[in-house]
Amino acid sequence: MTHAPKDPGFAERVRASFAKQTFMATLGARLERVEPGAVDIALEHRDDLVQQHGFLHAGVLATIADSACGYAALSLMAPGFAVLSVEFKINLLAPAAGRRFVAAGRVIRAGRTLTVCSGEVRADGAAKPIAAMQATMIAVENRPGVED
Amino acid sequence: MTHAPKDPGFAERVRASFAKQTFMATLGARLERVEPGAVDIALEHRDDLVQQHGFLHAGVLATIADSACGYAALSLMAPGFAVLSVEFKINLLAPAAGRRFVAAGRVIRAGRTLTVCSGEVRADGAAKPIAAMQATMIAVENRPGVED
Amino acid sequence: MTHAPKDPGFAERVRASFAKQTFMATLGARLERVEPGAVDIALEHRDDLVQQHGFLHAGVLATIADSACGYAALSLMAPGFAVLSVEFKINLLAPAAGRRFVAAGRVIRAGRTLTVCSGEVRADGAAKPIAAMQATMIAVENRPGVED
Amino acid sequence: MTHAPKDPGFAERVRASFAKQTFMATLGARLERVEPGAVDIALEHRDDLVQQHGFLHAGVLATIADSACGYAALSLMAPGFAVLSVEFKINLLAPAAGRRFVAAGRVIRAGRTLTVCSGEVRADGAAKPIAAMQATMIAVENRPGVED
Repeated sequence: MTHAPKDPGFAERVRASFAKQTFMATLGARLERVEPGAVDIALEHRDDLVQQHGFLHAGVLATIADSACGYAALSLMAPGFAVLSVEFKINLLAPAAGRRFVAAGRVIRAGRTLTVCSGEVRADGAAKPIAAMQATMIAVENRPGVED
Repeated sequence: MTHAPKDPGFAERVRASFAKQTFMATLGARLERVEPGAVDIALEHRDDLVQQHGFLHAGVLATIADSACGYAALSLMAPGFAVLSVEFKINLLAPAAGRRFVAAGRVIRAGRTLTVCSGEVRADGAAKPIAAMQATMIAVENRPGVED
Repeated sequence: MTHAPKDPGFAERVRASFAKQTFMATLGARLERVEPGAVDIALEHRDDLVQQHGFLHAGVLATIADSACGYAALSLMAPGFAVLSVEFKINLLAPAAGRRFVAAGRVIRAGRTLTVCSGEVRADGAAKPIAAMQATMIAVENRPGVED
Repeated sequence: MTHAPKDPGFAERVRASFAKQTFMATLGARLERVEPGAVDIALEHRDDLVQQHGFLHAGVLATIADSACGYAALSLMAPGFAVLSVEFKINLLAPAAGRRFVAAGRVIRAGRTLTVCSGEVRADGAAKPIAAMQATMIAVENRPGVED
């Protein structure tokens, strides 16, 4: 599916917002692909990000998939709007074993108010995802404190 | 809803597993209430855990709600079983503004294989939750590398 | 949780909208409780509503829970707005065995645009639900073809 | 994604189980494509299946998507196992306007116990889906009353 951005400066806008998400830096997550309706976020395994069996915590996968979905949505929003997560659902398909994880957020449907995205997390470039997300994002008009 | 634990040592088992989740320490999350079918996890606001507007990242809320749900489920499992997250869905009901956040995981239905839980996150002791989760957990028999 | 309705005529508005949902009549579903933020829908078992094992189809449970959630949301909306389902998630907790099923939709958080609800389906008055839903509803301004 | 069926008679098994779902006949739903890990179910608009605005009820879409996902999962299960829905989440992307609707269930990951599927509903052959589902199915050993 191809999408036409309403804001020619969408990529800078996504990058600027991502830079404000301090939790991304805390996790060591980096913004990779930024295209209209498609954003990838990558992260390396770290021993301080795991659950009880030594795999990445489901919350880490959810975090990068949620941000990838949110920024995929923001990439298609008109200037003057910020993005917020309404809700998401994630299936953990396999243990998060590996060195490098990429969360791919893709817009399924972009509406004026709501945008629905899919998110998939893959380990070490494998074809099969280890997690699958379906997320709903909302566009809110910029106001002091809530800006893109 | 009251639940009878199958493992009299459930609380120690939960605490020992929680201690292995290094991501909890990374977030500064602490295990508070541990009762049969009911586990609370608390966390303080930190500026390195936020999204682009300065509120706690949705992924942080999802992480503590997921762990609270998972340990609520584990508290009712028979000895010899470990818990894994199958999937969860979370609604972000309000901005995660506040100093102290508590995620309450509660078992809705405990089955032999699957356990379904609800998770609610509250800020600063307010009655209204800022996030609501519904999660599915699975009991897997202990084996090397996957232990409770 | 108690909610104050913005429309004193909320109950008639819910009943009038329900009457237009022909699928409710097709299923034999009836509107029971209609209070601010709380709507119950009841349904009797019928042999033409089942899945392969003779229990009510998950889609039947989802249908009455979705409508109960939607009308719980509508009961709190201002006049001039209609309700649409954005998304819902449902866990099937036990086989839908029984004679009479009641779906209880309750508003968890009512916002200007979005309302989040929980839905529970019970069989034959049992305390334990057989299905649990978490749903997001949206308020849309009435326009020709989309009216409350 | 291609999948190898464990049961050479998978298609007959799916068709026989579908025939027992009386709710499919009540809705006028028909099984179309039955391939390993991929099942389509089709349905025509009927005025007795609608919500308050005259579009197909979200529950109708959820029903055919759930069955399509369930049978996609069953098509990959070993003989002697039946399929049950654990949970599903559906986003309603656009009003269900149209004459003919097809729900496509596809297996994302087939495990020994749990199978995760995606479901998409399209109207009148359009490329864009009007609903997107993510569902978890469980394999249960056949026993009296619960058979494939």
